[in-house]
Amino acid sequence: MKIILDAFGGDNAPSEIIKGGIEALKMAEGFCLVLAGAEGAIRKELEGLRYDPNRVEILDAPEIITNEDQPTEAVRKKKNSSIVMGLRKLEQDGEAAAFVSAGSTGAVLTAAALLVRRIQGIVRPALAPILPTVKGGNVILIDCGANSECKPVYLHQFAYMGAAYAKAVLGIKNPRIGLLSNGTEDTKGSELNKEVFPLLKGDTALNFAGNIEAREILSGGYDVIVADGFSGNIALKACEGTALSMFTLIKNGIMGGGIRAKIGYLLLKPVFKNIKKTMDYNDNGGAVLLGLNKIVVKSHGSSKAKSVAASVLQAKELAEKGVTGEIAAYLTPKEQ
Amino acid sequence: MKIILDAFGGDNAPSEIIKGGIEALKMAEGFCLVLAGAEGAIRKELEGLRYDPNRVEILDAPEIITNEDQPTEAVRKKKNSSIVMGLRKLEQDGEAAAFVSAGSTGAVLTAAALLVRRIQGIVRPALAPILPTVKGGNVILIDCGANSECKPVYLHQFAYMGAAYAKAVLGIKNPRIGLLSNGTEDTKGSELNKEVFPLLKGDTALNFAGNIEAREILSGGYDVIVADGFSGNIALKACEGTALSMFTLIKNGIMGGGIRAKIGYLLLKPVFKNIKKTMDYNDNGGAVLLGLNKIVVKSHGSSKAKSVAASVLQAKELAEKGVTGEIAAYLTPKEQ
Repeated sequence: MKIILDAFGGDNAPSEIIKGGIEALKMAEGFCLVLAGAEGAIRKELEGLRYDPNRVEILDAPEIITNEDQPTEAVRKKKNSSIVMGLRKLEQDGEAAAFVSAGSTGAVLTAAALLVRRIQGIVRPALAPILPTVKGGNVILIDCGANSECKPVYLHQFAYMGAAYAKAVLGIKNPRIGLLSNGTEDTKGSELNKEVFPLLKGDTALNFAGNIEAREILSGGYDVIVADGFSGNIALKACEGTALSMFTLIKNGIMGGGIRAKIGYLLLKPVFKNIKKTMDYNDNGGAVLLGLNKIVVKSHGSSKAKSVAASVLQAKELAEKGVTGEIAAYLTPKEQ
Repeated sequence: MKIILDAFGGDNAPSEIIKGGIEALKMAEGFCLVLAGAEGAIRKELEGLRYDPNRVEILDAPEIITNEDQPTEAVRKKKNSSIVMGLRKLEQDGEAAAFVSAGSTGAVLTAAALLVRRIQGIVRPALAPILPTVKGGNVILIDCGANSECKPVYLHQFAYMGAAYAKAVLGIKNPRIGLLSNGTEDTKGSELNKEVFPLLKGDTALNFAGNIEAREILSGGYDVIVADGFSGNIALKACEGTALSMFTLIKNGIMGGGIRAKIGYLLLKPVFKNIKKTMDYNDNGGAVLLGLNKIVVKSHGSSKAKSVAASVLQAKELAEKGVTGEIAAYLTPKEQ
């Protein structure tokens, strides 16, 4: 199995990306790493690192798509970029199972939609991060930004994709699904939600638990939360932003709280560290683009080696555990 | 000035509501309290309290609208409910300046839209809570749930209403306005957002700072954040939910962290208390329904006496500082 890593995507590329990829190689057997990017620069970065050369391949892709580039235009014009060449290889190389990038989300989504085949029957791929819950488990939020305008059938399929992910990767047999809305009553929601609700409710293949408010996202009461990409993105970023804000408030409180607060902080440091780890989306790997025939993982733009390694291993796990097959199974009419 | 208080709205009605109203009377001069609800029960609650009888009026409204009632139906059928009678009095009594309720949000919104006149030119009233920011200031999020389906002109007017609120109540001369979206680029957003963007950008009366991600809501970089009611509701509740989740994680960490963590907690208690106070939406009063000729404040359903008192005083301030006049000023074409 080959996992293609965009060596030139993200704020800390290429150094931290390549380091992360090599770390992942050390952490798990059974896959080769394809580093996509300017070959000379990659070779230079590799010089200082120890690795099995039989497990590393370089895909020379001299162009770089930045966050400043307009995604659609960049994907069309920069045909030799690490994102375009990497995704092209993902589609064409039979051994390639996944593509991981910390680069421009827009460009990855656009290029993946153009270059990688969808699972038969899937109308729109969707972006799904895994969030931690207060109960210590996880919740999958789908879609978080791949589709800012949605039709009811998209969200119905997001439910399939999220459930397949929860089954295959989280090992949850009958994932509990909530529909993100502005109230818990069955009749609540946007026009879109009101059309999606009966589709989910009427689908016996799904364990649909009804509408949920954004307050419940991290509660641990749900395994999968289905949303249109616009609302899902807002929910995800509001959760992230509030968690960061809380840390800032705690830090400010400690800094301004004198010696007493500082001693208190030292004593509570392990607790804070644990919480920070729980809430750190970097440690939870990247967001997965589901609905394609192969795995695409989008890491945070600010990813360092550790989170790149986590994303590579996550991609490997997704490929090995057959998420795409699980999704396809939902779309195939079952015999009674 | 009369402030009408729904004595039978919320989880802790009528006892905590009435107590809160009486507390507010003690905290500020210059207004009378109208308690709407079953007269007998109100009189009984008042028996144990000390107050100036000249400042308290009872509006006998024997029916109660609960959260289980379907709002539109309840408003139509329960004509003698505290919400319907209270809002009717708000519209008809020249001295009545504001209505405060911790009851069913749907019923308050529905009844207010039916019974209270809008400011001339305003198409849709909107719900606007004030949130705390990490910089110690506040931010107004509008709309948070009054309109789950919006047209571009609604959001344009939400910007006016939010700015007027920030000017009149927060004392901000030229409020900085962000449009809640799924990215910061000018071209990001839902179809609706893409139509709203040029309206806000082209309006010289507004200090429009562009699209913002939900991550920035509590950052303190903005005074007003404009959203459709569906996304705004999700953003608000995701922020609330995450803040609560963080407290749960801290609490669990301390409980499981042995004696060391418990001592640390005791030392940091003032810091935690402060943060809890900052992030506690109850202390920040209720969400205001803007766009009507008079003030309507919706407190949290779980409000206790303290937050009811805060909401009553907030309603008084909004009325006194002339928010409705400020909103109207935005709608009147100005001489150059």
